[in-house]
Amino acid sequence: MPWQDRPIGSNDVIWRYTKNPIIQRDAIPVSNSVFNSAVVPFNNGFAGVFRCDNKAVQMNIFAGFSKNGIDWEINHDPIIMEEGNTKMIDSDYKYDPRVTFIEDRYWITWCNGYYGPTIGIAYTFDFKEFFQCENAFLPFNRNGVLFPKKINNKYAMLSRPSDNGHTPFGDIFISYSPDMKYWGEHRNVMQATPFEDSAWQCTKIGAGSVPFLTEEGWLMFYHGVINTCNGFRYAMGAAILDKDNPDIVKYRTKPYLLTPSVSYEQVGDVPNVIFPCATIQDIEQDKVAIYYGAADTVVALAFGRISEIIKFTKENTL
Amino acid sequence: MPWQDRPIGSNDVIWRYTKNPIIQRDAIPVSNSVFNSAVVPFNNGFAGVFRCDNKAVQMNIFAGFSKNGIDWEINHDPIIMEEGNTKMIDSDYKYDPRVTFIEDRYWITWCNGYYGPTIGIAYTFDFKEFFQCENAFLPFNRNGVLFPKKINNKYAMLSRPSDNGHTPFGDIFISYSPDMKYWGEHRNVMQATPFEDSAWQCTKIGAGSVPFLTEEGWLMFYHGVINTCNGFRYAMGAAILDKDNPDIVKYRTKPYLLTPSVSYEQVGDVPNVIFPCATIQDIEQDKVAIYYGAADTVVALAFGRISEIIKFTKENTL
Amino acid sequence: MPWQDRPIGSNDVIWRYTKNPIIQRDAIPVSNSVFNSAVVPFNNGFAGVFRCDNKAVQMNIFAGFSKNGIDWEINHDPIIMEEGNTKMIDSDYKYDPRVTFIEDRYWITWCNGYYGPTIGIAYTFDFKEFFQCENAFLPFNRNGVLFPKKINNKYAMLSRPSDNGHTPFGDIFISYSPDMKYWGEHRNVMQATPFEDSAWQCTKIGAGSVPFLTEEGWLMFYHGVINTCNGFRYAMGAAILDKDNPDIVKYRTKPYLLTPSVSYEQVGDVPNVIFPCATIQDIEQDKVAIYYGAADTVVALAFGRISEIIKFTKENTL
Amino acid sequence: MPWQDRPIGSNDVIWRYTKNPIIQRDAIPVSNSVFNSAVVPFNNGFAGVFRCDNKAVQMNIFAGFSKNGIDWEINHDPIIMEEGNTKMIDSDYKYDPRVTFIEDRYWITWCNGYYGPTIGIAYTFDFKEFFQCENAFLPFNRNGVLFPKKINNKYAMLSRPSDNGHTPFGDIFISYSPDMKYWGEHRNVMQATPFEDSAWQCTKIGAGSVPFLTEEGWLMFYHGVINTCNGFRYAMGAAILDKDNPDIVKYRTKPYLLTPSVSYEQVGDVPNVIFPCATIQDIEQDKVAIYYGAADTVVALAFGRISEIIKFTKENTL
Amino acid sequence: MPWQDRPIGSNDVIWRYTKNPIIQRDAIPVSNSVFNSAVVPFNNGFAGVFRCDNKAVQMNIFAGFSKNGIDWEINHDPIIMEEGNTKMIDSDYKYDPRVTFIEDRYWITWCNGYYGPTIGIAYTFDFKEFFQCENAFLPFNRNGVLFPKKINNKYAMLSRPSDNGHTPFGDIFISYSPDMKYWGEHRNVMQATPFEDSAWQCTKIGAGSVPFLTEEGWLMFYHGVINTCNGFRYAMGAAILDKDNPDIVKYRTKPYLLTPSVSYEQVGDVPNVIFPCATIQDIEQDKVAIYYGAADTVVALAFGRISEIIKFTKENTL
Amino acid sequence: MPWQDRPIGSNDVIWRYTKNPIIQRDAIPVSNSVFNSAVVPFNNGFAGVFRCDNKAVQMNIFAGFSKNGIDWEINHDPIIMEEGNTKMIDSDYKYDPRVTFIEDRYWITWCNGYYGPTIGIAYTFDFKEFFQCENAFLPFNRNGVLFPKKINNKYAMLSRPSDNGHTPFGDIFISYSPDMKYWGEHRNVMQATPFEDSAWQCTKIGAGSVPFLTEEGWLMFYHGVINTCNGFRYAMGAAILDKDNPDIVKYRTKPYLLTPSVSYEQVGDVPNVIFPCATIQDIEQDKVAIYYGAADTVVALAFGRISEIIKFTKENTL
Repeated sequence: MPWQDRPIGSNDVIWRYTKNPIIQRDAIPVSNSVFNSAVVPFNNGFAGVFRCDNKAVQMNIFAGFSKNGIDWEINHDPIIMEEGNTKMIDSDYKYDPRVTFIEDRYWITWCNGYYGPTIGIAYTFDFKEFFQCENAFLPFNRNGVLFPKKINNKYAMLSRPSDNGHTPFGDIFISYSPDMKYWGEHRNVMQATPFEDSAWQCTKIGAGSVPFLTEEGWLMFYHGVINTCNGFRYAMGAAILDKDNPDIVKYRTKPYLLTPSVSYEQVGDVPNVIFPCATIQDIEQDKVAIYYGAADTVVALAFGRISEIIKFTKENTL
Repeated sequence: MPWQDRPIGSNDVIWRYTKNPIIQRDAIPVSNSVFNSAVVPFNNGFAGVFRCDNKAVQMNIFAGFSKNGIDWEINHDPIIMEEGNTKMIDSDYKYDPRVTFIEDRYWITWCNGYYGPTIGIAYTFDFKEFFQCENAFLPFNRNGVLFPKKINNKYAMLSRPSDNGHTPFGDIFISYSPDMKYWGEHRNVMQATPFEDSAWQCTKIGAGSVPFLTEEGWLMFYHGVINTCNGFRYAMGAAILDKDNPDIVKYRTKPYLLTPSVSYEQVGDVPNVIFPCATIQDIEQDKVAIYYGAADTVVALAFGRISEIIKFTKENTL
Repeated sequence: MPWQDRPIGSNDVIWRYTKNPIIQRDAIPVSNSVFNSAVVPFNNGFAGVFRCDNKAVQMNIFAGFSKNGIDWEINHDPIIMEEGNTKMIDSDYKYDPRVTFIEDRYWITWCNGYYGPTIGIAYTFDFKEFFQCENAFLPFNRNGVLFPKKINNKYAMLSRPSDNGHTPFGDIFISYSPDMKYWGEHRNVMQATPFEDSAWQCTKIGAGSVPFLTEEGWLMFYHGVINTCNGFRYAMGAAILDKDNPDIVKYRTKPYLLTPSVSYEQVGDVPNVIFPCATIQDIEQDKVAIYYGAADTVVALAFGRISEIIKFTKENTL
Repeated sequence: MPWQDRPIGSNDVIWRYTKNPIIQRDAIPVSNSVFNSAVVPFNNGFAGVFRCDNKAVQMNIFAGFSKNGIDWEINHDPIIMEEGNTKMIDSDYKYDPRVTFIEDRYWITWCNGYYGPTIGIAYTFDFKEFFQCENAFLPFNRNGVLFPKKINNKYAMLSRPSDNGHTPFGDIFISYSPDMKYWGEHRNVMQATPFEDSAWQCTKIGAGSVPFLTEEGWLMFYHGVINTCNGFRYAMGAAILDKDNPDIVKYRTKPYLLTPSVSYEQVGDVPNVIFPCATIQDIEQDKVAIYYGAADTVVALAFGRISEIIKFTKENTL
Repeated sequence: MPWQDRPIGSNDVIWRYTKNPIIQRDAIPVSNSVFNSAVVPFNNGFAGVFRCDNKAVQMNIFAGFSKNGIDWEINHDPIIMEEGNTKMIDSDYKYDPRVTFIEDRYWITWCNGYYGPTIGIAYTFDFKEFFQCENAFLPFNRNGVLFPKKINNKYAMLSRPSDNGHTPFGDIFISYSPDMKYWGEHRNVMQATPFEDSAWQCTKIGAGSVPFLTEEGWLMFYHGVINTCNGFRYAMGAAILDKDNPDIVKYRTKPYLLTPSVSYEQVGDVPNVIFPCATIQDIEQDKVAIYYGAADTVVALAFGRISEIIKFTKENTL
Repeated sequence: MPWQDRPIGSNDVIWRYTKNPIIQRDAIPVSNSVFNSAVVPFNNGFAGVFRCDNKAVQMNIFAGFSKNGIDWEINHDPIIMEEGNTKMIDSDYKYDPRVTFIEDRYWITWCNGYYGPTIGIAYTFDFKEFFQCENAFLPFNRNGVLFPKKINNKYAMLSRPSDNGHTPFGDIFISYSPDMKYWGEHRNVMQATPFEDSAWQCTKIGAGSVPFLTEEGWLMFYHGVINTCNGFRYAMGAAILDKDNPDIVKYRTKPYLLTPSVSYEQVGDVPNVIFPCATIQDIEQDKVAIYYGAADTVVALAFGRISEIIKFTKENTL
């Protein structure tokens, strides 16, 4: 897996890859920007689904492949969907994909344009053929993230109900499905914080990377937003959800883990954005690599020790 | 059923009951207002679920009974929910109920406060005991209306996704459920109109009364909203949805059927509101009685001939 | 001309017709409302152009006729335009007409929907055939009012540049044209007032009735708007513009002349609106009848003595 | 004192005077409206300070006198201020006065326009000569209400910090002064409520009448505001503050005591407003008369039994 | 003319000058910034009109001269206007100039402050004396750009009607004038796009450089704006208008040609702005140099091959 | 005192320290950012109070010390307050401190969170023990700055009344207190400018550094704000207030003295912010060092000659 040791002298729980960004805005010929993208181990390497906005700033998702998780070849054409469990595969746009392997296949979730943003779902076995399913929810929704295994025999998805614009509010909810077609049992999981308590996540929050199981529960990286007088600033924190009942937040970072502070995060199509969408982790080696979109323009990579992240989250919980 | 013939000299498709409002704002001791309420035939008379805001302007729903559909006795205490298919029966508030009889029981839907407005569901056999089920959707949603029979073996519900305030947009969607617990197959059914085409419904629309089957399809009364320089004005129209595939709008009134133009509709807690929530109809006698909230303050009644409404809707369709 | 003496005991400069409103909202079969309309002497009686919103709340203008200026017969079909000095006679909507006789014909101006509201122009000789000309201006504009004779050999028009919504600002400008096709020499004539000076006209103002010449200059009734916590309130004032150079405001009422204070002005589709659009006057008899829209729903009539209005305007000028 | 017994059959804690409004909008020749005004016992009758907006809708305060507290003679000219403890007696506007007798004189507080709304202070001995003092606070503030005696040897004033427009938020604070010139020890007393708890007062609240001492503490009537889709609605509640430490709210009505529901409260310059500004009470006779502005247009009167109000407030406290 | 060949390895249709920005923010002693400026061939070199905001951030226009089109000498004092076809040469501010040579003189158009932004017009023969004419339009308008020759014997101007703030909407219109004094025949030419089709130009668009004639029609570079959660981002596209009837858009780039992606475009007084105002072209040599403001701070230069731009625009048209 | 000569070739009245920023965002272990901070001469060196937002983006103030005014040691724990003249030392947050030495002690003022932002006051003799006093004002207020000596025997404070968000308006007021507990005699000192006159300070202004006495009066550096389409931009100017009556502005810079134009001012948590909070000056040596927050992220330093600043302010006054 992608890895780089902590810089000497650093005490940070999370540190950036020194060669960031790993994917430039012009990674494929048509792209205006490549960001907010998701990767998974695949065959002997890695595969991913990438948000590439084209030069008309139309948002779509593209498959890509890598041997080392750092150097990526992204297809020059967007993913073409075939019918999965639905005939309705309309999409005005697709953005902010996540990828989750469950049982026998890779599930893609993304923000799907159907009379407003909602959560699109598709699956693939090979990152060549993709089968689109029913949208999970009614609009308006963003940041749908599936758990990598069923909970109580049902699929489980985090999402962030929103409005039809630059939503100035937003909590993370969980929903369950017996069949990836019908969804229910919606529960509020995590809320945006009072300004006084943790301002970087006081405007809205959204699920980020696919949760993975640790000894303390499901570890997930998420984004939090503060509304400054010059617009939204997105930073990253971590949450640990109960293993059997992920409605329950066991711990959640009051401080951020990563905030925009280097050039490719501070300057770009949308300044001051860190937006985590995926991790590659090795529990035994105690390593996690976090993929995040930076400034809505490029893809960057950060690293951490899982045990340290858990310790930090527990000791600095809200 | 409640009925009054068309006033002599009138050409209106829909006409008001001359003794409106039928339910005053102080109908029960604690009520600030009684409006946006739903009724059904029950036993040898009628039963209903009523939105009564109390004098703290807390919103809740109350059962009520009537012999003639016009004179109502509303319980002085709100409905207490027991567990139906869920243990999660939290409600910060309940408002704008609808009632639908399906197969063996009466289903109540309403706008349920759970981290924002969404669609609550409950059932009753007797209007004494009520069993709350899982909320149908994630917030933010309003105006959930069930079809009175299953479509393709699934429950079907209209609703209006919204935001967390005085939503200035909104279309009617349909969703399906095999079991009243998990919902999916969401489709956009009807959209707010361009201002130029039909301004009374150009800001947002919402399902109103429970659809009933006619020879042309499902007939439903809905509300449409225009945003004037002095706030929202709510009027009422009709739509006919395809019998077998109610995603399809066959006809929909370009003109309104009823707009605020008498005192109890124009003056009250929220001026200029007509908000239909229920009908009592007799297909054979070609009669329908429409119950609507007026000015967010009282309940009023209007009448029409079903055949004429269908004819008008077809001839004046958008 | 229409007339009613001042009520005994009244000191008001302007007084209402006791049988107001003179035109009800359902004056023609299709109308939702009839308001903000204009009349002129015609043949041995009067003719007018009326804003009738239909029951789809589509806005259009209709010709009408009256023998006494009070009882009106309005055509049941909207005005059909033929080509005047342009082939471009598109209108998404037409509203708030004014009528001005200049030299040999009647000119109609109105708010014309062409990629936003702007000022439409047409002429007629007989109120049967109407010939549409080029729009006077680019959008966004409202309340275009022509002077009844050329100024320095050019047509002159007052208007109120605005935005594409419920504009919360607005001054009255004047523009000139040699030919009713090309317009220029735009000048700011009157501005909305500081809140402290005259709050009823502090949000925006707009030209109302066609100016007519008095010994002191052009006398015009206009509307002023205040933005309350419950929306806009429209009242009426008067201004006297210099005879030869109507860019110059000689006098302008600091107090309003008429403010919504009777039921048909306070309650309706848009509460609290008085919107003057036309006058019939007899200089020799010292009488003026003012036609105004009330509550965006009906047409009402008020009367005054021209000499008293001039005196009041001079003595109470801003 | 003004009084009328409770209507037969009524259970309301507060009931309206049957001849409301007691002061019409045209009570003096120049007035557009007379509302939100304050009265006190004076000599053998009553005196008051009245908000009369003139017909330019300029806001000013006028002295008035009455023998019975119901029929008022209001001066035709506004109050002229002389220098009290300051030379700075600028006022862009004056509105919403309150009057409090403390020790040897009558203190007037009002919303004073000085680079925004703040709290003006003046005193009079005779309602003929008025002496303006330093404004109590920096802008932006409204609804300054003095306690009728010193608390811990200091003057005490309730107020509502706000912004420079139609403020959509607002709590009641208390401040203290040793000398009516310098103010400090500001404390938050009462906050707007969560929507779910008491929606009529969820947007903002403001002190209303001058508190008077009862056996339970200071009894004050205040206004609460809800922001509907058609603007603000103002209703009235009661609060009981601790006698010695009025920072402490002992009881506060969760339900309103009076909400707009008759014509002169629902229709007017600003629909749906009840705004209490003063009381006349007789503790021994257990009577209170409440003066309130209605619809920002007129002055109305309501009555209640002090003991019942206290009982209701205690039993229905938030 | 200014020129630099395409960088080796680049496939971009438009490429930046490697020594950008060509004019720094402090180009003249008083300037805070120099941007959004226009140049033309003049004598044996080039002349231009430059927007220089001074250090009080007052906006004005200044003449400047260059031998090579890259190194500029800008006058230290703003342009003084003399009377052209009007005596009304008031300007609260002047910004965003364009320069067009028509027949015998150079016409300057700019955003002129006269009770709001509108289009100012002036002419010069020598860039020393400037003669101001009547404003073309009523406010509110920006981005007035003249065609370099008459169309059907009339002057033709593109412009973008707007509101009085940071307008969040806007289409390009065309207007005609027989005499540079009176304007009419207003037509909508190009509209902001649906978000799904081409998001970089979905909020508003505005004419940029003076159109020049190619074999396919008038080629113009324009700006398009997207409203991100951190404010507006301005990018550049091209449109080809019909030679004889420039109301007709023959082709228009769906992708942008240039978007902010280097430091001087991404960081500055207003981040993420590319704003084209002028071109120098040589049809025979197939070259065009585009002058654009960057980040509302400096002037930059980009180059392209006309034939390639036409080809790209045709192949990538909306 | 900190000092660096003007760069050769520069004509700027104010110039930046070449090693800016002097305090990095991670100056202490817990800090997200260190900015908008205040320093004073103390013992043989300097002391300061620093705004350090922690990594939860909670705002607090910290003491720090320096020998040369450039290299600072900031305490790792925030200031703990003891009771001064009040028992009420609640603070939801503390930010933007200023420090003023008056007579025998150092007074700290800051933006204190008490039901909204207001002005907190504390004093210290040694920067170890701090004694919190009553808040100066009711909320909502920011930028409270004390004069370093009493004026007419009273403490004097500048402040900027505001609202509860990113206030889009704001003037500087002065208030007086006999005892640092009760405040009054509030006067408007300086207003935001008309856009046309000086746009960098047209949205709001706020007191910055503690005024110091010069031969011309009190010299103070303040910030001004312009609202661009991409948010607020903060620049710095100077004002000279009358020595004996600081309500009177003798001179005030129409141009700014410093505007964001280097990287650490243009890029950061809030781009484009210069926010002066303190000066160190030596009148005899004619030197002043200005400490300012940059981009809400770091602390920077600039220098100038006092005599030149006074001359510039007089010659370029509004």
